[in-house]
Amino acid sequence: MPEKIAFLGLGAMGFGMATNLIKKGVSVTGYDVWAPTLERFVSAGGSSATTPKETVKDAPFVVFMVATATQIMDAMFNEENGAILALAKGATVILCSTGPPEYTPAVRKLLNEKGRSDVFLVDAPVSGGTIRAANGTLTILAAGEESAVEKAREVLELMAGSNLFTIPGGLGAGTKVKMVHQVLAGIHICMTSEAMGFAAAMGVNTTRAFEVLKSGEGTSWMFENRLPHMLVEDKTVYSALTIIVKDIGIVTAGGRSAGFPLFLSSATEQVLAGGIMAGLGPIDDAQLVGVYLPKDPKLVLKLASASTTAEDDEKKLKFVAQLMKGVHLAAAAEAMSLGVKVGLEPKQLYTIIAGAAGNSFMFKERTPQLLDGKWTSTKTVDDVIAELTESIEEANKMRYPLHLAGTALQLFELASLRGFGKEPDVAVSRVWDGADGPLFPRSS
Amino acid sequence: MPEKIAFLGLGAMGFGMATNLIKKGVSVTGYDVWAPTLERFVSAGGSSATTPKETVKDAPFVVFMVATATQIMDAMFNEENGAILALAKGATVILCSTGPPEYTPAVRKLLNEKGRSDVFLVDAPVSGGTIRAANGTLTILAAGEESAVEKAREVLELMAGSNLFTIPGGLGAGTKVKMVHQVLAGIHICMTSEAMGFAAAMGVNTTRAFEVLKSGEGTSWMFENRLPHMLVEDKTVYSALTIIVKDIGIVTAGGRSAGFPLFLSSATEQVLAGGIMAGLGPIDDAQLVGVYLPKDPKLVLKLASASTTAEDDEKKLKFVAQLMKGVHLAAAAEAMSLGVKVGLEPKQLYTIIAGAAGNSFMFKERTPQLLDGKWTSTKTVDDVIAELTESIEEANKMRYPLHLAGTALQLFELASLRGFGKEPDVAVSRVWDGADGPLFPRSS
Repeated sequence: MPEKIAFLGLGAMGFGMATNLIKKGVSVTGYDVWAPTLERFVSAGGSSATTPKETVKDAPFVVFMVATATQIMDAMFNEENGAILALAKGATVILCSTGPPEYTPAVRKLLNEKGRSDVFLVDAPVSGGTIRAANGTLTILAAGEESAVEKAREVLELMAGSNLFTIPGGLGAGTKVKMVHQVLAGIHICMTSEAMGFAAAMGVNTTRAFEVLKSGEGTSWMFENRLPHMLVEDKTVYSALTIIVKDIGIVTAGGRSAGFPLFLSSATEQVLAGGIMAGLGPIDDAQLVGVYLPKDPKLVLKLASASTTAEDDEKKLKFVAQLMKGVHLAAAAEAMSLGVKVGLEPKQLYTIIAGAAGNSFMFKERTPQLLDGKWTSTKTVDDVIAELTESIEEANKMRYPLHLAGTALQLFELASLRGFGKEPDVAVSRVWDGADGPLFPRSS
Repeated sequence: MPEKIAFLGLGAMGFGMATNLIKKGVSVTGYDVWAPTLERFVSAGGSSATTPKETVKDAPFVVFMVATATQIMDAMFNEENGAILALAKGATVILCSTGPPEYTPAVRKLLNEKGRSDVFLVDAPVSGGTIRAANGTLTILAAGEESAVEKAREVLELMAGSNLFTIPGGLGAGTKVKMVHQVLAGIHICMTSEAMGFAAAMGVNTTRAFEVLKSGEGTSWMFENRLPHMLVEDKTVYSALTIIVKDIGIVTAGGRSAGFPLFLSSATEQVLAGGIMAGLGPIDDAQLVGVYLPKDPKLVLKLASASTTAEDDEKKLKFVAQLMKGVHLAAAAEAMSLGVKVGLEPKQLYTIIAGAAGNSFMFKERTPQLLDGKWTSTKTVDDVIAELTESIEEANKMRYPLHLAGTALQLFELASLRGFGKEPDVAVSRVWDGADGPLFPRSS
């Protein structure tokens, strides 16, 4: 058991993570810029400090869970009161915030330049939400020098339990996995609103929509997680829209720096930006549906107990399910292609995402075919085009916008144009093949 | 001079076209479902009729300028009072409405089935706006059997003057040219709002933005035409949003039926659908900027005389110009690729669009390079990526949505991924190359 942990950043995630450590018997000194949080933290059994410098004093382990890479840079290197001014010799620093992949190597470089090559540094972004943060079962993606990861392991296991993954590739590799995961998290959050807004615009009973869609091939972890907050009046901010906006911004910046096209991620980013422009930034991301239904943002809620027949609703929900399936399959291909492009090991990447918030039915079902190169899907690219077309034409009748589904259709059309129309649907991944050949070779 | 013309559909365009014919000395019988228009038409020297059947009686020429192909079908074939019930033997029917390319052959087939193979039928969609409609200088894209086009020529010339083009390829070919033209018209209308919304969000004096942008490489016909209506309080509906929504719907349906990806057209369709959802359908399409600035739809107008310095504004407008250039170049490639895919002759297509409302600086400058295969542009695909990236990152700072520019970046990234990064920027067209080779072969 580590004797003392310094914990910087006690937001929705960090507070749960730090109090979980306290419950497990660790002495934790917490820090946050927002004073009321610190009081709550002391009530929960923690100690508090008023600067990063004071927080990390004498702590063999330091966890950063502030909101952004920029905040980490400031909390670590601020010349007045930064952690660097008091970091214990040989301390292990665990960076859990989600930032761009290049930020953890940048922290290493600065530490070394300031004569602190004695500090062990671990890149350890997390995923799983506030509940798993509080009970110590977060997914953690740990990367860095082996000696650093080993020193950090006991702390990481207190926060992750059996959900700790060690990612090969050095500092930044964990963050790359998180980035690829967020491709899917972002697209699925946005698609949840696109899909439910469409169902509502067709007048479907939205409670039934949830029941039908979650048990079909169009479902996703995000869909099942967010829907309950759309069907009742609930102003709780489980995850503010600004968080996924930040994360998808890291994704598209990653695509730009890798010179890699990310059509669905980019479309998602624009819809999310539309949400910010409409003033939805501080509220829960399940309310993004307001961007799709600007004149009646509460329509999904209003229709939660609408008097409709199951037969009528199910006919309409077929259109919605087809859109979700098509978008989720293309998203799986976009995410896995980016992962390979940035040097990640695709089988581990698949395992991690399949067990985390980025999964969808289509991701879990189709991605293994990409990995082993055996395309066993009985649906073809042209079949998906036919399904997407049918649903998009239905939406067009009422001029309902389908930013993601429209983009997904173009990706399948492009795959078909390149000669993959009669191939199994996972061949949409060929859109991301570069001049130097396929990212996912097909076996036999 | 034709002795009598029956004219069905006296909307904003049709009224001008029909009264132009009257001014040139033709006897015109007009028809419209909206009675007040008919009264105005009689005041302007026309005759009026109350049904399509009555309208076409004894008329050697019949012009249809109703809003949609569906309306044409009804006005022509309605069993109670359709034109077919009174169409003169050997009459020449000129279809000027914009519909999907397959509708004019469908009219021909139905006429034949009803024993009216004596009727000469011309596919003759128009472009150019209400002013050119009223002074007889519309661009008209005439196609059909040679005998039909020849019989119609004197009427077409009264409406088009020297802007009459004869399109090879039979019935539907004129409509295909119009469809390709509308790819550009639609994207440029949407980009005008995306660009000006961005300029306004940065706080630029929008009158200066217009002056600076229209004289640069990012300009387009639509930009120059729409901007004056954004900079003053003007509730006139020059062209209702619903019109371009209908037209871009024809474009994306054309892409789907040709199995051809149209990324920018699809993104445009979704933004326009967002405009419909926000209630902007009946108002002028220059107000689409409200979709980009939902909390302050009048911001472009408010900043028309903002106190800013030219130096500051010009720095910011560089970002906007870069986005417009990139989008317009990718749009030119998307449109010309679709044209070739549907069998149009690209040189004629270029000539028509360059002289019509679908043109942009980039279209006029770069398309000739596609056609003759001599890529002389000194900018590379990677240069465009760098410019788009710089501008998109600027917009990201304020979370301003860039639906079209974001999509355009992915297209250039995809071209680069396929090995065209160091090639001249027109190589973005290679994104649309299919399994059977390039659409635009490169010479030497």
